[in-house]
Amino acid sequence: MPRLRLAILASAALSVPPLAAVAAEGMWLPSQAPALARQLKAAGLRIAPERLADVSAAPMSAIASLGGCSASFVSPEGLVVTNHHCAYGSIQFNSTPENDLLVRGFLARTRGEELPAAPGSRVLVIESLDNVTRAMMAGVAPSMTGAERTRRLEANRKALIAACEAAPGTRCDVRSYFGGTEYWQQKMLEIRDVRLVYAPAGGIGNFGGEIDNWQWPRHTGDFAFYRAYVGPDGRPAAHSPQNVPYRPRAHLKVAQTDLKEGDFVMIAGFPGVTERYRTATETQGWYQDIYPTQQRMLADYSALIERATRTDAERIAYASALKGSDNFKKKIAGQIEVARASDLLGRKEAQGAALGAWAARPEHRRTHGLAIGNYDSLAAEALAADKARLVNGTLARAQLLSAARTLFRWANEQQKPDAEREPGFQERDRQQIVDRLSAIDRRYVARIDRAILEQALAEVATLPEASRNLALEARIAEIGLDRLYAETRLDRRDERLAWMDRPVADFAASPDPFIQLAVAAYKADMLAEERQRDLAGRLDAARVPYMQAVRAHAASEGRLLYPDANGSLRFTFGHVKGRPAADGTAWTAFTTAAGILQKDTGKDPFDSPPRLLEILKARDWACCASAHLGTLPVNFLSTTDITNGNSGSAVLNAQGELVGLAFDGTLEGMLSDWWFEDQTTRTISVDARYMRLVMEKVDGASGLLKEMGIR
Amino acid sequence: MPRLRLAILASAALSVPPLAAVAAEGMWLPSQAPALARQLKAAGLRIAPERLADVSAAPMSAIASLGGCSASFVSPEGLVVTNHHCAYGSIQFNSTPENDLLVRGFLARTRGEELPAAPGSRVLVIESLDNVTRAMMAGVAPSMTGAERTRRLEANRKALIAACEAAPGTRCDVRSYFGGTEYWQQKMLEIRDVRLVYAPAGGIGNFGGEIDNWQWPRHTGDFAFYRAYVGPDGRPAAHSPQNVPYRPRAHLKVAQTDLKEGDFVMIAGFPGVTERYRTATETQGWYQDIYPTQQRMLADYSALIERATRTDAERIAYASALKGSDNFKKKIAGQIEVARASDLLGRKEAQGAALGAWAARPEHRRTHGLAIGNYDSLAAEALAADKARLVNGTLARAQLLSAARTLFRWANEQQKPDAEREPGFQERDRQQIVDRLSAIDRRYVARIDRAILEQALAEVATLPEASRNLALEARIAEIGLDRLYAETRLDRRDERLAWMDRPVADFAASPDPFIQLAVAAYKADMLAEERQRDLAGRLDAARVPYMQAVRAHAASEGRLLYPDANGSLRFTFGHVKGRPAADGTAWTAFTTAAGILQKDTGKDPFDSPPRLLEILKARDWACCASAHLGTLPVNFLSTTDITNGNSGSAVLNAQGELVGLAFDGTLEGMLSDWWFEDQTTRTISVDARYMRLVMEKVDGASGLLKEMGIR
Repeated sequence: MPRLRLAILASAALSVPPLAAVAAEGMWLPSQAPALARQLKAAGLRIAPERLADVSAAPMSAIASLGGCSASFVSPEGLVVTNHHCAYGSIQFNSTPENDLLVRGFLARTRGEELPAAPGSRVLVIESLDNVTRAMMAGVAPSMTGAERTRRLEANRKALIAACEAAPGTRCDVRSYFGGTEYWQQKMLEIRDVRLVYAPAGGIGNFGGEIDNWQWPRHTGDFAFYRAYVGPDGRPAAHSPQNVPYRPRAHLKVAQTDLKEGDFVMIAGFPGVTERYRTATETQGWYQDIYPTQQRMLADYSALIERATRTDAERIAYASALKGSDNFKKKIAGQIEVARASDLLGRKEAQGAALGAWAARPEHRRTHGLAIGNYDSLAAEALAADKARLVNGTLARAQLLSAARTLFRWANEQQKPDAEREPGFQERDRQQIVDRLSAIDRRYVARIDRAILEQALAEVATLPEASRNLALEARIAEIGLDRLYAETRLDRRDERLAWMDRPVADFAASPDPFIQLAVAAYKADMLAEERQRDLAGRLDAARVPYMQAVRAHAASEGRLLYPDANGSLRFTFGHVKGRPAADGTAWTAFTTAAGILQKDTGKDPFDSPPRLLEILKARDWACCASAHLGTLPVNFLSTTDITNGNSGSAVLNAQGELVGLAFDGTLEGMLSDWWFEDQTTRTISVDARYMRLVMEKVDGASGLLKEMGIR
Repeated sequence: MPRLRLAILASAALSVPPLAAVAAEGMWLPSQAPALARQLKAAGLRIAPERLADVSAAPMSAIASLGGCSASFVSPEGLVVTNHHCAYGSIQFNSTPENDLLVRGFLARTRGEELPAAPGSRVLVIESLDNVTRAMMAGVAPSMTGAERTRRLEANRKALIAACEAAPGTRCDVRSYFGGTEYWQQKMLEIRDVRLVYAPAGGIGNFGGEIDNWQWPRHTGDFAFYRAYVGPDGRPAAHSPQNVPYRPRAHLKVAQTDLKEGDFVMIAGFPGVTERYRTATETQGWYQDIYPTQQRMLADYSALIERATRTDAERIAYASALKGSDNFKKKIAGQIEVARASDLLGRKEAQGAALGAWAARPEHRRTHGLAIGNYDSLAAEALAADKARLVNGTLARAQLLSAARTLFRWANEQQKPDAEREPGFQERDRQQIVDRLSAIDRRYVARIDRAILEQALAEVATLPEASRNLALEARIAEIGLDRLYAETRLDRRDERLAWMDRPVADFAASPDPFIQLAVAAYKADMLAEERQRDLAGRLDAARVPYMQAVRAHAASEGRLLYPDANGSLRFTFGHVKGRPAADGTAWTAFTTAAGILQKDTGKDPFDSPPRLLEILKARDWACCASAHLGTLPVNFLSTTDITNGNSGSAVLNAQGELVGLAFDGTLEGMLSDWWFEDQTTRTISVDARYMRLVMEKVDGASGLLKEMGIR
């Protein structure tokens, strides 16, 4: 599952899910656990449901975010487990053509051998999650223009965050829930010294690669280990040899019981974005225009990278970008196909009609009667803006252009007091920007960056002029791509970093062609931002009453709603369970060792390490087999509700013990970002027993197993 | 499942099956039902098990043989149901390029519209099944040569059959069971006026064609109806307008209950050949030499037909031959592959070792000690003879050569008293020979027959000279293929039939080049036959004590054995049940309407009739759906033990009611002719509810349904 965040998708929230009693559906806020107590117990949870509501205690306090992926602590010494594909960037960062850790894997036999994670890597540990709706709505008035409303919400959010982040080493966010009817503040400890501890060989961690991605049966050992370090004072600190392992408030115990079909499981993590409450009008716009466009653009981008990368070094540099693009492309293609096959639009229309009929009843008309029409009237404008942002976003793939624009924006924002700066350009964001600017070194090839820029320029040329940055385009044409790449010095890390904090005037005077582009683009960028701010405010003002109607309608039918995923901590629960597949066939809940032997071809992506094959052929898995299956489990399916961002999430059993890591969903379940289908939506997880076998028998990671309290 | 009979495979019987208590394994003699009463009841049979032992009463008396396929009576008016592929020859026989019933299907709306089945078609109704071991062994002495023993057994068999067939319209056979330790005589009413009543369109009856053959999921409506006619006196008679529908002693009722996974089912029919008791030595010879040779020869033969047939008429003429070859080739390929994957040879060796250890015990040594070695010492000679017969058999595909040899053999046998003639050339065989000679008209194209003969000559040239008919080969070379096909008159039906009963001298004097070949081949043919007779007698003499050891060994462990399939009436029982498939997947017990819609491409072999698609899309299946599945079942899997010859067999529920027709096994279960694997061996049947839907909604066969007592 890709770690991409669909940042461009607003968290609109407009309709009702189809069923109330389906345990599998729902990305629940921890605070909703008490209200779900009966359902959780009925499903099989054995610990007190209320415990899930306390994010400062086990098991929830063992759950961490990597920013785009989820993870969890599995030892008192800051050991963190996540997916191999979530650590991909760090494995790549430490690879060279001579020693490709993506292929060979990596194990630090001592703490001293641990490698720095990729620049910008973070482990975010949740400390609190509080409802701040009242503070966010302070000063927001119906009479405001859209831009005023957005600015007020931004100001309130910044004030809340600034107060929250007064504690050093803290990272806070305030997100919208239920389409702006609620706001919650997450307070996270931001650990900046993250080290790569262990990753199995690519033939395990990425077994099946793109071919098996989003598929079942699956046999991927998609796991890897980081360790979180803090300063000697126990507070987050930059990487330093003096740092010590972070001691988490709680860590997960690996289950020793035999997980089997039908067992209760729950998944805790940070799902990115879902669109479950979108209207039929929005659904139509996305599935008939925006997604198909995005699918084509991703295909073009992947094809370009494949064409352009010629050496091993280039392949490594763009591996992560290619993997992300391929993954996302496959997801969107699947989503479009399943939406068509399952008549998503028809269902959305029916759902909207039911809500409309309810709102039109005499007893609801006065409160909710206008909400639907008001919100829907903004749809066309919002869809056009979403599409323009998507297409313009391709320019951000050109890394030097993107760096220059970031630097110039930073310079401009520096002129304001910190609290008034644009989110993402405040003092609190400095380190992330520096890290991003630094990371370019290992992911940049001038010839390829230029081809990417050319492709992006062709893309934006398809937009209406009003949606384009014509000044930028004109300046690029003036300078010419040859000069752009020949004369820039931004391809050097020190040069990029040297531009941080330089005054606006220096940019205007710079001969660097990319800096010149950033200056040329600025005015139109700001205008576009202001237009977007106004639209966002108007959408928000219309969405809140709309979502209130949706919630009131659900409540009238006794249904508890969960908010759309927005990157914050959630839990989902269900059962280990197979599903019907093509007519006359079914998917069973577990894959096993036999499947690895069947699939292995010795060639990427089915190139298991010889040692693993030996072990499996010899059935040398006494440590780790399932008594119930009579063999070694590898991956399993469960009826849980996850999406992008949940990758690496701990899968817990009824006792709250670790039984696996979620790493993917199945193609037919892709629709689940828009509509949860109980029959087909399944989470794919790597079984903790397979992880243990690989650690113990293949890679000899006995030190880690001991640290995790196994044997 | 092909209707081919592996006539060349002797029914050797040498080892023990692995498990005693597996209900699914076993092609039981009806007379074994009382001994199985406890197991049958435990499995779920609701009628008295003893009823299965009485072949003259329901339900067994409703079971019929078509000679190579199985069938059953489903109305008091002689209506017979079997597989579409079992009626294929008759459908083909009545097809023309303008009206291809293989594509369109056929329904006789009145009895007058019924069409004659292909020449030679028979419905054989069992009247008795008696143990005749004592009579068969009369005069057989250990001191006899092999040839003497074979002649004695042949003479005894012929005498038994002659006595049995004294009743007109009766056909009897005496077959060897348990490798010659028992002989049973089947007495059958031989109904010769068989008419085609109904066959669905090829897009139903052959849906999936060769692509889906031996596969699951499967969606084939593999059923068709004949009607059996007899003379006004109620006895079998040649086709005549005066004939009347045969009134069977019993007919099957179609079940009205909801068949579902786990339900008891049994299958009664005429399985052709199994090799479950073969030794390790024999297994090695077949799997490492004979089967691979056969596989290649069938591939060459299929390729030749595909290359050579150019017009629709030619395609129709050779459709049945091609289908048979393809089917058999696929089966052998599957068998070889599964045998390798499952280490058949290793298992056979282990089984043989267990038997050997048992026989070597002091208490068994005197009785059984020599049996194993004596039999095994003949294996190399027997395997070489089997291979030679297989390769020489390709010459029989050249139809005029085969006809000429049959006619000349007939003339020679005519010189002896009837009782002394070779089986197959007695007066009782006259009509079958005439029918075969007649049928050539519709299945012969000179150019193609010539190519087939050329291919066969190349095949036999690979054999050692001692195994070839060198005189025949020399005469063919002398005459030359051009003259052979230019000058023969045997391509005319009247000419072929005119040669029946002409004296030997006429053959010798004939200028017809194919008749000349038959005369040239005769002496060597007779010598080869005598050699084969001698080997068969020596094998039989060694096999009987060997098989006695096998049975005694099984009995000592409390295991009841069933005899290898030999074309006689058997029953098998088990349950409706899916099975594990590729790791992480399973096959469910039923396929449903949804699968037809998924597979349909509009093109052969996935070309459902438009009317069927309409009905399925509209879910217009109230008549026939399964309440349990909530949709229309199409095919189902069961844990029953069938093989070639079982095609068309009635599948009965616990009450003895018809729930479907067996028509295939699955690729992985192909090994079951040699070794029954409980986990993977499944029978594929067409569900009677799908048959009903097609009859009622697609083809409007309401008259037949009424006749069958439905609604």
